[in-house]
Amino acid sequence: MIEKIKNFIKDNIDKYEYNGAMIGISGGIDSAVVGKLCVDTLGKERVKGLILPERDSSPETLNDAKLVCEFLNIEYKIVNISPILRKMGVYRLEPPTFFIPRKIQENYVKKEFEKRRYINDLMNKGDEKFLKGLAYYRSKHRVRMILLYFYAEQLNYAVIGTTNKSELKTGFYVKYGDDSVDIEPIMHLYKTQVFEIAKELRIPEKIIYKSPSPDLVPGITDEYAMGISYADLDRILIKLENKEDLSDENDEMVKKVKKILDAAKYREIKNLHLR
Amino acid sequence: MIEKIKNFIKDNIDKYEYNGAMIGISGGIDSAVVGKLCVDTLGKERVKGLILPERDSSPETLNDAKLVCEFLNIEYKIVNISPILRKMGVYRLEPPTFFIPRKIQENYVKKEFEKRRYINDLMNKGDEKFLKGLAYYRSKHRVRMILLYFYAEQLNYAVIGTTNKSELKTGFYVKYGDDSVDIEPIMHLYKTQVFEIAKELRIPEKIIYKSPSPDLVPGITDEYAMGISYADLDRILIKLENKEDLSDENDEMVKKVKKILDAAKYREIKNLHLR
Repeated sequence: MIEKIKNFIKDNIDKYEYNGAMIGISGGIDSAVVGKLCVDTLGKERVKGLILPERDSSPETLNDAKLVCEFLNIEYKIVNISPILRKMGVYRLEPPTFFIPRKIQENYVKKEFEKRRYINDLMNKGDEKFLKGLAYYRSKHRVRMILLYFYAEQLNYAVIGTTNKSELKTGFYVKYGDDSVDIEPIMHLYKTQVFEIAKELRIPEKIIYKSPSPDLVPGITDEYAMGISYADLDRILIKLENKEDLSDENDEMVKKVKKILDAAKYREIKNLHLR
Repeated sequence: MIEKIKNFIKDNIDKYEYNGAMIGISGGIDSAVVGKLCVDTLGKERVKGLILPERDSSPETLNDAKLVCEFLNIEYKIVNISPILRKMGVYRLEPPTFFIPRKIQENYVKKEFEKRRYINDLMNKGDEKFLKGLAYYRSKHRVRMILLYFYAEQLNYAVIGTTNKSELKTGFYVKYGDDSVDIEPIMHLYKTQVFEIAKELRIPEKIIYKSPSPDLVPGITDEYAMGISYADLDRILIKLENKEDLSDENDEMVKKVKKILDAAKYREIKNLHLR
């Protein structure tokens, strides 16, 4: 499986004459795996990392991202995107939290979050405050995307994506944000398969065993946001994909996944046009 | 043709439960036409315009954009994106031109531009200076895109695109910039068809009869950048599309268009992935 991905990366970098690969390193498992695949394919000299923290990023995340870049042994740059978000007016949408301890922040956000379901996020449905929250968090990944291109294009590097199949199917990405890249090496793999590959690639254990989180609002992990574990989600997604028997699955959970898949159609709206 | 587009806009706004339409108004004919189609479909209360000038924008452009918004009679907001581009480091790539008269700027840029062909732009091919130029101009449309979403999402408005078929086929857009929208009302129409519709919709003559320009670098019009007039381009594109006889066309011109279509494949690289 790893060989197939490496050939795929090499073929496309060669075909379109890119000089190398630019990757946003988040400190999570997906970008670590993609980074390692690129380094093993192209050599570390042709892979560059960008770490793009902002005001609400967890300090842990920055350390993990540096750890990944050092593990990959690639040249990397840290660019704090807060000044850009501030000029855009993004931070004006949510109160500053400088003086509030992180634990209290996280609990506050979690309480707020429960009232707003993931389905509503996918469908862009909610009151004024909820909609502001959507614009708020999504702007962060969009600024990251345009910075990745800003640095990549100066070198004729390809922007490499880190979206996996679980995220793709459930709409767990920001439209025209982290989904907007040139090459997607792991988009055909479910998150649970990414874990397997991560072990094979000997990604640092600290990165493999932390809770996956988009780190867009304090304290919200992927599984918390979607309300289901990746193990359950992927198992059900795979059964649905293969039209397998679902009778031994929890009914409520299957319903939930189907609802997410249905609402994800809103996230997929792009360039609707006449023929 | 106009009725068909209006039904298409209405159907999709209804289907995905958007509250309205957000449009970047550039002062050009495409966004004026799209704006008018949206206003005629949804009513002016459900259409908002964003005018997004920056350091290098022509002063004429801003006036034209205001004229369009006033013609449409819609609520609009002017946001100067220079501070965002400055924080991104975009302006550091090109010398400031504050004290150089615009005519001299334009001639300088034109001289520089001729050495760098449009094909190289499509293929991201060139020396360090050329690549910096690509990152420089493309960042502007990308910042515009993320601002359109930032304002649209707070209202659950759809972002409406203004890309036409001539631009789409020739790659005359910024990837993950002006091509990244929810609904594309005129993407099935060649630029020459957009002119026809503009007259039917009684768009102000000043807007119809100015030279189309992306206004990304001073003095460069669409036709100058591509090295061919829209009349010639569209006529050849349509003949190619319908597999019609090309023997009465200028050979060099046909070759040029074919070369552009071929190189446009590089612009279309998005989310390459394994199955």
